[in-house]
Amino acid sequence: MPSTPFAVRRLKASSADFSTHLDHLLAWEGVSNAEVQKQVDKIIADVRQQGDAAVLAFTQQFDQHPATEFSQLEISQQQLKAAFESLPTKRREALEVAAKRVTGYHEHQIQPSWNYTEEDGTLLGQQVMPLDRVGVYVPGGKAAYPSSVLMNVLPAKVAGVKDIIMVAPAPRGELNPLVLGAAYLAGATRVFALGGAQAVAALAYGTESVPAVDKIVGPGNIYVATAKREVFGKVGIDMIAGPSEILVVGDGKTDPDWIAMDLFSQAEHDEDAQSILISWDADWLDKVEQSINKLLPTMEREAIIKTSLQNRGALIQVENQEQAIELINRIAPEHLELSVEDPDAWLPNIRHAGAIFMGRYTAEAIGDYCAGPNHVLPTSGTARFSSPLGVYDFQKRSSLIYCSPEGASTLGKVASELAEGESLTAHARSARYRIKD
Amino acid sequence: MPSTPFAVRRLKASSADFSTHLDHLLAWEGVSNAEVQKQVDKIIADVRQQGDAAVLAFTQQFDQHPATEFSQLEISQQQLKAAFESLPTKRREALEVAAKRVTGYHEHQIQPSWNYTEEDGTLLGQQVMPLDRVGVYVPGGKAAYPSSVLMNVLPAKVAGVKDIIMVAPAPRGELNPLVLGAAYLAGATRVFALGGAQAVAALAYGTESVPAVDKIVGPGNIYVATAKREVFGKVGIDMIAGPSEILVVGDGKTDPDWIAMDLFSQAEHDEDAQSILISWDADWLDKVEQSINKLLPTMEREAIIKTSLQNRGALIQVENQEQAIELINRIAPEHLELSVEDPDAWLPNIRHAGAIFMGRYTAEAIGDYCAGPNHVLPTSGTARFSSPLGVYDFQKRSSLIYCSPEGASTLGKVASELAEGESLTAHARSARYRIKD
Repeated sequence: MPSTPFAVRRLKASSADFSTHLDHLLAWEGVSNAEVQKQVDKIIADVRQQGDAAVLAFTQQFDQHPATEFSQLEISQQQLKAAFESLPTKRREALEVAAKRVTGYHEHQIQPSWNYTEEDGTLLGQQVMPLDRVGVYVPGGKAAYPSSVLMNVLPAKVAGVKDIIMVAPAPRGELNPLVLGAAYLAGATRVFALGGAQAVAALAYGTESVPAVDKIVGPGNIYVATAKREVFGKVGIDMIAGPSEILVVGDGKTDPDWIAMDLFSQAEHDEDAQSILISWDADWLDKVEQSINKLLPTMEREAIIKTSLQNRGALIQVENQEQAIELINRIAPEHLELSVEDPDAWLPNIRHAGAIFMGRYTAEAIGDYCAGPNHVLPTSGTARFSSPLGVYDFQKRSSLIYCSPEGASTLGKVASELAEGESLTAHARSARYRIKD
Repeated sequence: MPSTPFAVRRLKASSADFSTHLDHLLAWEGVSNAEVQKQVDKIIADVRQQGDAAVLAFTQQFDQHPATEFSQLEISQQQLKAAFESLPTKRREALEVAAKRVTGYHEHQIQPSWNYTEEDGTLLGQQVMPLDRVGVYVPGGKAAYPSSVLMNVLPAKVAGVKDIIMVAPAPRGELNPLVLGAAYLAGATRVFALGGAQAVAALAYGTESVPAVDKIVGPGNIYVATAKREVFGKVGIDMIAGPSEILVVGDGKTDPDWIAMDLFSQAEHDEDAQSILISWDADWLDKVEQSINKLLPTMEREAIIKTSLQNRGALIQVENQEQAIELINRIAPEHLELSVEDPDAWLPNIRHAGAIFMGRYTAEAIGDYCAGPNHVLPTSGTARFSSPLGVYDFQKRSSLIYCSPEGASTLGKVASELAEGESLTAHARSARYRIKD
């Protein structure tokens, strides 16, 4: 008995209720509830007070880790190296190619120091320095991805960060050798088998064994996200990641099977992942839907893909290219795949997207692993105001100001006038001391 | 009857308990308590539900604003222009000089898009775009500073942000004409007389009258800081600012009066502000202390300065230049004044500082107003991982990936191998579709 064909939600951008439907489709609030907040607050407080002992206890409790001493939670460089060397040759070589390409791309992001000197000898500029020490959170369980290790550790390395402390939870003490191998290849300085809010707290405040870091990056579950938000200010953090999403725009001329698989590759991440396809070619949307139905039963993660497409997927028919671009900017997708003839021509109009995959041959999956750009990207519309993880996240700037005696005199007059206007008279007098005439 | 001379806390870096003293001196936790959190949560929820009506009601309640309609809370461009034109000529001209210099400096921070093409035709790069719309929070009351308007609005302008929505609370309906004039000069798109958590909520979620923005910048009190932390993720935010601080390092050859006044210029901001002086010349530290005692009674803000110096100030005697540099990096000051002979030589060793004021003539006050660099700087040691406010805060990046058919084939092999390793088979198949042979 053939089952009913699987139908992905179909929307028309020109219909009256489209905007409401779209808002509903995109809605995502990853906020933690009061209960999670309370637990995280307690975990952080305990780690701050009791250090290693608290971290060990939470790790035993939450991860069922068999360690009886904190020292058993650190993975030595020897273990990392052994894990790397134990990988099948083909896989190790693929990791090496990926690491080399990711490093090469990120080297273009290094921001140099700069300065300029004015006529009177006054110098202005900006000195760029790497962070001293960063923490990289690598999720465990089904989302234990060696590619994420490369994508988080390598930009820090390229930026010149000396100490890179990686944490990854090890449920029942088990760690993924690919993850450890990637940590070795990328050059993590120290690796701890820690996860959850306790790992974030240990990195932010330091314990006897875990050195306090200056910034924590990497995705995690709701406890990790809540803890990161909590320690923000004490340390820097990257964005709070939502579920992963892709927006594919097609001109109707790409093989529908390719597009179906591209949508699957997003949907297979988890049930909350979002895959949306846009086209002005309604017949082609039908064909992609047929491909979805044809290919779905052949997928290892069929159930996850189906749930994801059902809950959060959509095929959207637009009137034309302009309407497609309007939608892109409204959605501000994490991944944008432009499966069209001349993607270059689209670029100047695309204001918001984490990463743009241009042309029929550029599968999003290639970007996930080895094209070079980072796969840590702004989700849930945050591409409106944030960027892919990059070297710039591991560098910071100091303004440089040197006033020549002449410059101090000229500028001192302006500064003292404005300081008077703000009733900050010590400011005014401090500037005026340096005025010559 | 002469009063007892005022003694600023004196520490010796070589003493056994110095580290503990320093930690205590630097300790600052600006965390909001549960009560503030609860109030802010309610304010945000009300603004999200009731829009303008809630914002107006809170503004009447907290600011005693006499407005009876929301429209009365918007300041028109005509009003801004009139405020600008009403300023005394000398002050208006000083503002203009400052705006021009700040703009000129920030233009050096514009990040261009870039890309490169590999041998097989694959193109990788990064497209840089401005944010669409940002919100600038300008505090009211005694901290209503026109210079802050320039420092927050101009970098957004230079970045190419089209809509800049400024909010500033107007207690009892009163607004500072210098602040309005600065908003006109800097080019704020719209200005509302709003403050507190209600202003932050309105900017983050939008109301009938206030357009929702993509990022909120600018300092504020504990309610504003708590609200910003809360809406982080829905919109971008800049750092949560702590009290302002300066670290002056002197080689003993700068006029002690100048240094005393530089310390005062920080201390006069508020009672929590922090002024620390470091030198290896103990006699000179004595002389600066004498200058402090001599000049303090002549200061308009004597009481604030005295409290600030008493609670959070210190004169620290170090052994030598190396120890001074160690201390600088440990403190990671917001403002660092190098009142020494050859400040250039110090730079390569200074890893953490918001802004570096080099040489005897470079008063920190000049940087506050008109040197060019931004005066919004990382406080409370956050210079370890963050930067001055800049054009880069108002730009964001999209990764660009275009695979040629050849590139897709080569990279597809690597990607599919790694995807298999992560059991993401849709990823693998999506990449493999593009392999030629």
